[in-house]
Amino acid sequence: MLAEFSIIPVGKGSSIGDDIAKVLKIVDNSGLSYKINPMGTVVEGKWDDVTRLIKKCHHAVLKGGERVVTTISIDDRKGKPNRIESKVKSVEKRLKKSLKK
Amino acid sequence: MLAEFSIIPVGKGSSIGDDIAKVLKIVDNSGLSYKINPMGTVVEGKWDDVTRLIKKCHHAVLKGGERVVTTISIDDRKGKPNRIESKVKSVEKRLKKSLKK
Amino acid sequence: MLAEFSIIPVGKGSSIGDDIAKVLKIVDNSGLSYKINPMGTVVEGKWDDVTRLIKKCHHAVLKGGERVVTTISIDDRKGKPNRIESKVKSVEKRLKKSLKK
Amino acid sequence: MLAEFSIIPVGKGSSIGDDIAKVLKIVDNSGLSYKINPMGTVVEGKWDDVTRLIKKCHHAVLKGGERVVTTISIDDRKGKPNRIESKVKSVEKRLKKSLKK
Repeated sequence: MLAEFSIIPVGKGSSIGDDIAKVLKIVDNSGLSYKINPMGTVVEGKWDDVTRLIKKCHHAVLKGGERVVTTISIDDRKGKPNRIESKVKSVEKRLKKSLKK
Repeated sequence: MLAEFSIIPVGKGSSIGDDIAKVLKIVDNSGLSYKINPMGTVVEGKWDDVTRLIKKCHHAVLKGGERVVTTISIDDRKGKPNRIESKVKSVEKRLKKSLKK
Repeated sequence: MLAEFSIIPVGKGSSIGDDIAKVLKIVDNSGLSYKINPMGTVVEGKWDDVTRLIKKCHHAVLKGGERVVTTISIDDRKGKPNRIESKVKSVEKRLKKSLKK
Repeated sequence: MLAEFSIIPVGKGSSIGDDIAKVLKIVDNSGLSYKINPMGTVVEGKWDDVTRLIKKCHHAVLKGGERVVTTISIDDRKGKPNRIESKVKSVEKRLKKSLKK
């Protein structure tokens, strides 16, 4: 399945880059396929692997603060592996055009 | 922690009430504190209990279809239990007014 | 259409109740049908009325801070008015059981 | 402000690529800065420009179906333009490492 998540520390100043860096280091070391974007991180994997990774990230941020808001969107489609690459390509093929990524 | 989730079967017709009923039966039997609203279900519990419940609901819906989109929002605040009741009450107290629920 | 939204001021301390109270006062005075829950506010109305209300709330919170994260989920179904009441009732009818709200 | 959105037609089959292509054509022609990812589209612009674009996309999909679920996440930070490029770069600089995008 595909999942996008974002983790926001609440109450620690409006610059939260150190926390985001901590999260992305965990993601980069996880072994799961991922892609980051300006609003979140998309990962692909099985339910347990994905939720275990997000749990680790969530608690790494919570450790240094009082309150954390985490949002997760899951798109789970049977029998479709490697959608982290194929979803965007499939749309570009339909449009016969390369889009901004 | 508090978590709100919603599960949408994609590609099964625009009336998805049977799937929603299946999900809410699982939630009602879970033993976790919950509140349903027109857009989702709020549950309160520990990370593993909450994600285990959502996993069970997600797979119950996926079982009968091809594709499921699940969104989860988590609000985790240290040392604050029973927020499923207290969050709304705290706002009503500030406003000195009862709000629609 | 139905829309649920939540507005989080980032970087202003972990207790954000004053901002939430400000938002709910605006919602309560808006004239739109609404229901609040521990994770957000559900409103029902036309696209422009709903987005105008959320804009007003978002900017009321941003005015007093540096950064605001707002999430919105919209469920728009043709020819179905008053879903803010009927969606939950329809599920309870299927389950022949009253659920926690 | 930055906003990520995704639009899901409900009840039209599990392959929704034609609708996604329609949406991305509108986004690509909008003149707003954007980046697509496997789970949604990130755009940068003023509140009214961004919500007008999402409204156009939402109604283009609703036109061909019965029900549409649209989710929007907004990150609005005062005095920070061009965050669609700078947010990811800022994290990579902290980590002294290029991440997958």
